[in-house]
Amino acid sequence: MRIPEIIAAKRDGAELSPEDVTHIVADYARGDVPDYQMSAFLMAAYIRGLSHAETLAMTWAMVESGDIVDLSGIDRPTVDKHSTGGVGDKTTLIVVPLLAACGAAVPKMSGRGLGFTGGTLDKLESIPGFRTDLSVEELLRQVRKIGAAIVGQTPGLVPADKKIYALRDVTATTDSIPLISASVMSKKIACGSSTIVLDVKCGSGAFMTDMGRASLLAKEMIGIGRGAGRRTAALVTDMSKPLGRAVGNSLEVAEALETLHGSGPADLRELSLQIAALALEASGIETDPVRSRSVAESALDSGAALGKFREIVAAQGGDVRVVDDPRVLPAAEAVEDVLAVSGGVVESIDCRAVARAASLLGAGRERKEDSIRPEVGIVVIKTVGDPVSAGDLVAVVHAADRGSAAVCASAIREAVKIGQSAPDTPLVREIIR
Amino acid sequence: MRIPEIIAAKRDGAELSPEDVTHIVADYARGDVPDYQMSAFLMAAYIRGLSHAETLAMTWAMVESGDIVDLSGIDRPTVDKHSTGGVGDKTTLIVVPLLAACGAAVPKMSGRGLGFTGGTLDKLESIPGFRTDLSVEELLRQVRKIGAAIVGQTPGLVPADKKIYALRDVTATTDSIPLISASVMSKKIACGSSTIVLDVKCGSGAFMTDMGRASLLAKEMIGIGRGAGRRTAALVTDMSKPLGRAVGNSLEVAEALETLHGSGPADLRELSLQIAALALEASGIETDPVRSRSVAESALDSGAALGKFREIVAAQGGDVRVVDDPRVLPAAEAVEDVLAVSGGVVESIDCRAVARAASLLGAGRERKEDSIRPEVGIVVIKTVGDPVSAGDLVAVVHAADRGSAAVCASAIREAVKIGQSAPDTPLVREIIR
Repeated sequence: MRIPEIIAAKRDGAELSPEDVTHIVADYARGDVPDYQMSAFLMAAYIRGLSHAETLAMTWAMVESGDIVDLSGIDRPTVDKHSTGGVGDKTTLIVVPLLAACGAAVPKMSGRGLGFTGGTLDKLESIPGFRTDLSVEELLRQVRKIGAAIVGQTPGLVPADKKIYALRDVTATTDSIPLISASVMSKKIACGSSTIVLDVKCGSGAFMTDMGRASLLAKEMIGIGRGAGRRTAALVTDMSKPLGRAVGNSLEVAEALETLHGSGPADLRELSLQIAALALEASGIETDPVRSRSVAESALDSGAALGKFREIVAAQGGDVRVVDDPRVLPAAEAVEDVLAVSGGVVESIDCRAVARAASLLGAGRERKEDSIRPEVGIVVIKTVGDPVSAGDLVAVVHAADRGSAAVCASAIREAVKIGQSAPDTPLVREIIR
Repeated sequence: MRIPEIIAAKRDGAELSPEDVTHIVADYARGDVPDYQMSAFLMAAYIRGLSHAETLAMTWAMVESGDIVDLSGIDRPTVDKHSTGGVGDKTTLIVVPLLAACGAAVPKMSGRGLGFTGGTLDKLESIPGFRTDLSVEELLRQVRKIGAAIVGQTPGLVPADKKIYALRDVTATTDSIPLISASVMSKKIACGSSTIVLDVKCGSGAFMTDMGRASLLAKEMIGIGRGAGRRTAALVTDMSKPLGRAVGNSLEVAEALETLHGSGPADLRELSLQIAALALEASGIETDPVRSRSVAESALDSGAALGKFREIVAAQGGDVRVVDDPRVLPAAEAVEDVLAVSGGVVESIDCRAVARAASLLGAGRERKEDSIRPEVGIVVIKTVGDPVSAGDLVAVVHAADRGSAAVCASAIREAVKIGQSAPDTPLVREIIR
């Protein structure tokens, strides 16, 4: 079919053949289909939906628009992990070394944060000297040697996704399960790992606020992963409050290190263990859930995961002293306490307000070219369910100056709602094997 | 609302405020909204529909993107007429002088044909010397003097329509009642006449093949016309076979002249009279349908309409001898008869096949820059319902050379289906006052 016929068929709710989906996506990636035709197609796909077969065809066409990382030279099971994004989510910093310590090879390519908070790369770059701009050859060499690396996505990977995402962003076609799935999974597939574990965040601080839709998204992505021959599993996890306590780049690295040292916030430790256990199981490194869990726990508690983290930092040029001394990380000039004005129980924490406050401090970026401040952020001391008395320390703001600290502190005071009782939302809401 | 919010609201099926519709349409016309956002909006509008208020707001925003013809200096009731386009439709050539002969002022701006057959301007330009590129000042002067003019649309009129139409054409968003209505009515409103009569064609040879949709389109356009303060009425008329007998530019002028002389095909005469009568009634020139009809009939039969046509030709620089001698019109080099291969009754004539054959001869244009041949075309001798015997003359092909004549003759033989009986489709299917 010609391009307008493909658009018309989707407009009328027909299911397209894989060839027609490939035609429009591949031609758009090559520049042979103009933006205005692609945006009409994306709107039709948004409203009419895409079948599983159409979404898989779209994903493959996107993967094939660029390079695919060849991991055939790696003799351990390769594992990748993806989170749909949440406030205070630093699990990658824990799960990658943890999986490597358990015998997986983890060539992790991460994005930079766009929006309110920094991404994994931004967090790691708060470690002095840490390099994330490794070439694919350097990445492969490092993974073969120590089992893990965390680097930026190389520009040759899935150029179609960058182009389509930029278009969706300005044409009101972002919030679509098939289009999100194709975007996420095209990158995961192009990264080459044979096992993919997805952490789909659900709640007020996540892209998906509705449990039903989060679950559908997880299932659609699993379908694509398996359709592309990858072992794929997913968790749907809570994002109604920040994960852990720290929000901000160097603050989150410090908290991840605490967790790798065996302490750290309970929710962060638990989620990291569950993601790692599911990955061990999905990859076939371990065969049953109970054993996967105990292997992951041992690797965390024995310090093996911490050791791997140290190796990663060393291999990527970072200051390894950070592992035992968080004071190596950049520290904020102005630190301001947020105290409770009344007593009770923390009823809720407005995740988005916390993220926005962190962004205003300089922890995130709104445009790609913005620079971020590694040292600023917020540490939430009292989380949802904690009892508080008036005057208790609720949160600590780390800022570049007293002025922005004060503004942020007042925003955080608003964001932490103290009442009589708190909902009991489970951390892991669904596991899809 | 910001542009992506407007797109998102329409995507989700909300009704937009007139301000929001105006915002996106006006900003697009000015170049402040890129094609890719407008095409996403148009696709959402196509699928979700536009309410009457939204369509009216879109129409006004389009009208206001350019000039509006000021007809306040004309002291007779101003009347405009529009056809949604059919094969062999030359009623404008008859209705415009007929209405002028009845006391209306008819400043008619027409389009060129795009697609299979020539438009009104192409037809008139087959008269040697006839000018259609009058300025607005020349148009007004001529209408004040003789009551009518038929000219090309000036480029300053409704630039938004040209831009939006070009975008719809390549994004599968043409076939939408609100979008068609806004496109047609924006031009009619900008042309300034206080009365607008619409001829909505319905059938295999028209854009609308379904009677229900044709009727909806007519009502939507009437609603916009009245919403913009214009007296508006419409007919839904049959286009399951060519109107009259001639298809092709100079052939159609000759047939229109025959009709103005008091003969001509019955369907063409009847439709011209009904359109004119409805316009006289709608404009208030006459007060009741019976009187409107008899006034129109008298003006046609008395030769008054023919006299007006002569005045128009003279005023626009054409060779007035054409009025009494069609041999002034360019004639084809090769004329080939199409004979019936079997006997029976003409069951149907494939309008689109006839139009396509005419286009292949050179009567139409596929791209704006194509030139057309005025002299070529087809005259259908036997129309739907006529009895035929094998060997009877069914049609005559007028071509530039014997080769194309033969190809066309064979296409016409295919297009005219001879069987046992013919459906009895009424010419005028609905009149909406």
